[in-house]
Amino acid sequence: MEVHSLSGHTAWALLLEYDGGPFIGWQRQDRPPGTPAFGTSVQAVLEAAAAKLNGGAPVPSIAAGRTDAGVHAAGQVALLALPDRLRASQVRDALNFHMHPHKVAVLRAVPAAAGWNPRFSAISRRYRYTILNRASRAVLQLGHVWQIPRALDAAAMQAAAGRLVGHHDFTSFRATACQARSPWRTLDRLDVTRLADTIEIVAEARSFLHHQIRNLAGTLRLVGEGRWSADDVSHALAARNRAAAGPTAPPDGLCLEHVGYDPDPFAPV
Amino acid sequence: MEVHSLSGHTAWALLLEYDGGPFIGWQRQDRPPGTPAFGTSVQAVLEAAAAKLNGGAPVPSIAAGRTDAGVHAAGQVALLALPDRLRASQVRDALNFHMHPHKVAVLRAVPAAAGWNPRFSAISRRYRYTILNRASRAVLQLGHVWQIPRALDAAAMQAAAGRLVGHHDFTSFRATACQARSPWRTLDRLDVTRLADTIEIVAEARSFLHHQIRNLAGTLRLVGEGRWSADDVSHALAARNRAAAGPTAPPDGLCLEHVGYDPDPFAPV
Repeated sequence: MEVHSLSGHTAWALLLEYDGGPFIGWQRQDRPPGTPAFGTSVQAVLEAAAAKLNGGAPVPSIAAGRTDAGVHAAGQVALLALPDRLRASQVRDALNFHMHPHKVAVLRAVPAAAGWNPRFSAISRRYRYTILNRASRAVLQLGHVWQIPRALDAAAMQAAAGRLVGHHDFTSFRATACQARSPWRTLDRLDVTRLADTIEIVAEARSFLHHQIRNLAGTLRLVGEGRWSADDVSHALAARNRAAAGPTAPPDGLCLEHVGYDPDPFAPV
Repeated sequence: MEVHSLSGHTAWALLLEYDGGPFIGWQRQDRPPGTPAFGTSVQAVLEAAAAKLNGGAPVPSIAAGRTDAGVHAAGQVALLALPDRLRASQVRDALNFHMHPHKVAVLRAVPAAAGWNPRFSAISRRYRYTILNRASRAVLQLGHVWQIPRALDAAAMQAAAGRLVGHHDFTSFRATACQARSPWRTLDRLDVTRLADTIEIVAEARSFLHHQIRNLAGTLRLVGEGRWSADDVSHALAARNRAAAGPTAPPDGLCLEHVGYDPDPFAPV
């Protein structure tokens, strides 16, 4: 898609927040004519708002990460082009106006450098997976955590997480439907910390495989419950077989927090 | 109400979390027969669940703080009596089962000491008021923050907050409908801190007047926007007149976080 090449248009880098709960995920699902829609994507909401600023003409967009259904974002980054006359605050406010009441907001809009691409220019992605470790179900954080009643040993989870950091074939932790050409990824950070009854798993890498973080979280849960050792995690990784690792954690607890670029388009000027 | 005096019953101290959004507040609103209900209270949801554990007989309850419509709680404390046969985890789990899907959860249940009262035995109450200080509306924190677009000076707000700490006649900051006999209260803590675009106001006192924290927050906002000085806040306090202080902040941002007792019934044994 050639977002930059439209004459009379400015390409905008957008910093986005959304609640993944009501959405089928980031990506627009194009259906054959006559096929009923099965839900709304964040991309469709954004592009519909952008089209209103483009005389009704379609405005394609690209995002840094195609988050799955139910996955949240506090720092998604997207690119789209709009007619030249708009200022940054107008782009932000007008898109927000037209997206209302969908649970999506543009936090920042900045002109994108030529050739910049939110997906391919990204040098890091940071996700947070939040577990609510208590007997009672989530209330204030409902839809934003994975509630696990059994007491988890966060220190054991952290120790096991250390086995996964680094450059590995993550076949055991990627969705069988994952379309990435290579199962090799470099996991730069996988930290598990507890604060009262909340356990946060922070994962950082240049890029991730499909379901990778949710599969890591589902596996670390087994360690936290004492059912798996750190060695079991190493063996699951070495097996290069999805069936060897733990189940996929639910999307609710996952949030795309930050996408890194060099230079950072959103850095204060 | 004599919660403790029922023979064959055990009085339970409950630690409660709820999302205030769907509720008319903590307090059950008894209406004359034939009058339509206008909403659900947290107390009514809790007492309806408790009645199911009491052979259908009514179970009255008392709470530490009668939070208003829309105000949240992460640490509300209540007292009610249930038939003797139940263990603490059964009380918690059975109440949670019957309260589902209302956005209320019992986090802990412990037997209450004779004479203990969640309201009158409390020695401190801590509330948190959260402001989201950004142009874009709240998404991930929707319903749990007061979104204010104009940049707020949190340091100026903190300095002005210092004028309000201590033993004062808070007439200027209490609802005109407030039923407390005295407008005097000792505000032990009023801290304003900023973390990125979030400003937290933490208020602690033995007890608060009706709408006191929301009126304090609405006034500190004027300071943050540069429309009021710290001296203006002092003058508003001295005026002993509700009209002299700022407007009432919305309930969304307010959460009852902690109620203190000595001894603490929820302390680990």
